[in-house]
Amino acid sequence: MPGDMPDFSRGAAYMNGTYVPMAEAKISVGDWGFIHSDVTYDVVHVWDGKFFRLEDHLDRFHRSLAGYRLSPPVSREEMREILARCVALSGLREAFVAMLSTRGVPRIYGSRRPEDCDNSFIAYACPWVDVIPKDVQERGAHLWIASIPRISPLSLDPTLKNYSWRDFVRGLFEAHDHGYDTAVLLDPEGYVTEGSGFNVFAVKGNVVMTPDRGALEGVTRRSVLDLCDELGLVGKIMPMRTEDLMEADEVFCSTTAGGVMPCARVGNATIGDNIMANDRPGPISVKLKEVYWRKHAEGWHATPVNYDDPEHPLLMQTTAA
Amino acid sequence: MPGDMPDFSRGAAYMNGTYVPMAEAKISVGDWGFIHSDVTYDVVHVWDGKFFRLEDHLDRFHRSLAGYRLSPPVSREEMREILARCVALSGLREAFVAMLSTRGVPRIYGSRRPEDCDNSFIAYACPWVDVIPKDVQERGAHLWIASIPRISPLSLDPTLKNYSWRDFVRGLFEAHDHGYDTAVLLDPEGYVTEGSGFNVFAVKGNVVMTPDRGALEGVTRRSVLDLCDELGLVGKIMPMRTEDLMEADEVFCSTTAGGVMPCARVGNATIGDNIMANDRPGPISVKLKEVYWRKHAEGWHATPVNYDDPEHPLLMQTTAA
Repeated sequence: MPGDMPDFSRGAAYMNGTYVPMAEAKISVGDWGFIHSDVTYDVVHVWDGKFFRLEDHLDRFHRSLAGYRLSPPVSREEMREILARCVALSGLREAFVAMLSTRGVPRIYGSRRPEDCDNSFIAYACPWVDVIPKDVQERGAHLWIASIPRISPLSLDPTLKNYSWRDFVRGLFEAHDHGYDTAVLLDPEGYVTEGSGFNVFAVKGNVVMTPDRGALEGVTRRSVLDLCDELGLVGKIMPMRTEDLMEADEVFCSTTAGGVMPCARVGNATIGDNIMANDRPGPISVKLKEVYWRKHAEGWHATPVNYDDPEHPLLMQTTAA
Repeated sequence: MPGDMPDFSRGAAYMNGTYVPMAEAKISVGDWGFIHSDVTYDVVHVWDGKFFRLEDHLDRFHRSLAGYRLSPPVSREEMREILARCVALSGLREAFVAMLSTRGVPRIYGSRRPEDCDNSFIAYACPWVDVIPKDVQERGAHLWIASIPRISPLSLDPTLKNYSWRDFVRGLFEAHDHGYDTAVLLDPEGYVTEGSGFNVFAVKGNVVMTPDRGALEGVTRRSVLDLCDELGLVGKIMPMRTEDLMEADEVFCSTTAGGVMPCARVGNATIGDNIMANDRPGPISVKLKEVYWRKHAEGWHATPVNYDDPEHPLLMQTTAA
């Protein structure tokens, strides 16, 4: 109805040209993004009304697009604007902001040629999400080393963001079956890779290590390594084995949707478990988490969102109403 | 508008309780079926108004559901009915009929626990699709042996139907870049697995072989093996190497969406190519294809669709209008 503002309070989405409330953000069951997991994405967060490392996320999104041969009909400049408008429409000061491109539905009915598809661009801003809930972060997450290996990098490049998470979902079920909160996967050779939506770190002395393979090059991971330099810790991207987790002083996870997330236990079906720092988040993890958020408050890598965009037709409509 | 029949001519879908035209068959961008490829499916075809091996497809779908710990709120009896109603609504005599279950959207906002999701049931009937177009089947498909390995069975059980097709999509691009029609993938150890939506067979003498690993246990594959028995050929499920394709007299593919699909060439970046039977579909492939369709006409494994279902509210509406 003209004059009525849609309800964007649960999030606002951009679906190939139109802004809609989250509940209406839907894709066709025939989109290859769904039926072939032929999609890439990235997620940037907004904290206190400001994007964090927006350009780094846009850089990585464009690397993923190129790696998957996806060409959405939207320039980088337009993406930046669309993401900000989703946030502005939602009015959210803390938000989980996603950008996606799916292969789309073939122009020729029934075609099995990816070349016959027009690739989509989708974006949305929705209320803040913690990959590990805040209360679990407080007591220290219990991290399960799953028995199922992460899909080999030969079949799926883990540095290109993807939704091929069936191995992670199996890992999550396995973790929950054992009373653990979340899971990390090993690669087929037994090296530590990553968890379902987060990088993993082990602390031993003043060394803060994170896997060199099978993992996304996380923007929060990079931020943590930057903080290590500042705090006189030795950040290392290196091969990691199960033992590095089982013998660690501390373990924590990092992600855009949650920041630095301390663990208190690491468990494994064959090796047993590692209960760290009196079953609580360790001091280095806690320090990194604290500094990570304090620097947010100081405007670290921040891009403010303009919540009163006078050019925006939907916002203009509200003003007029 | 009451009294108006929606336009189901491009297909009819059942979306968690409601029948809608294909164009309206959409899932949330937050459904784990999309964002984690946490979904399974099956496809049965309708030929001349009759399902082919419907119970075999329902059997396999239920095995996939159990393997993925998915529990859609629909009984097997109801699924059968829903599938038939999708076909009846569409009016299609030849149809591609899919059944799916996605993990769904978590009941608790932002939850990363699959246990917090209500699993969906989706079904649809849409016009016939050939995985390899009819004209390409006629001249014999050109099949590319891709350099990218299929996701290892350790990470993804290939006998449970899945949409984790990023490796296949890369294979398809590679095939098309080399001027080939479609692709087959090897496993990490170099054994032949399957193509993007089809099983593969090689013929050598009177032996018709198909891979014993890394492949879906195709319903059409089973039908082909049944036909081999009838025709005095030796059907074999066995380990297959690249050489089995490169030295074959004939190669063909099988799938629900296309049946028996003969190939004329097999190509590989390192070994070269195998141009078979004067670059045409070979006699055994052609014979199997012919018998496969002839037996369809004779009512082989057929379950007729009731196109005039008097109980169906939407059909009753048409009658009333």
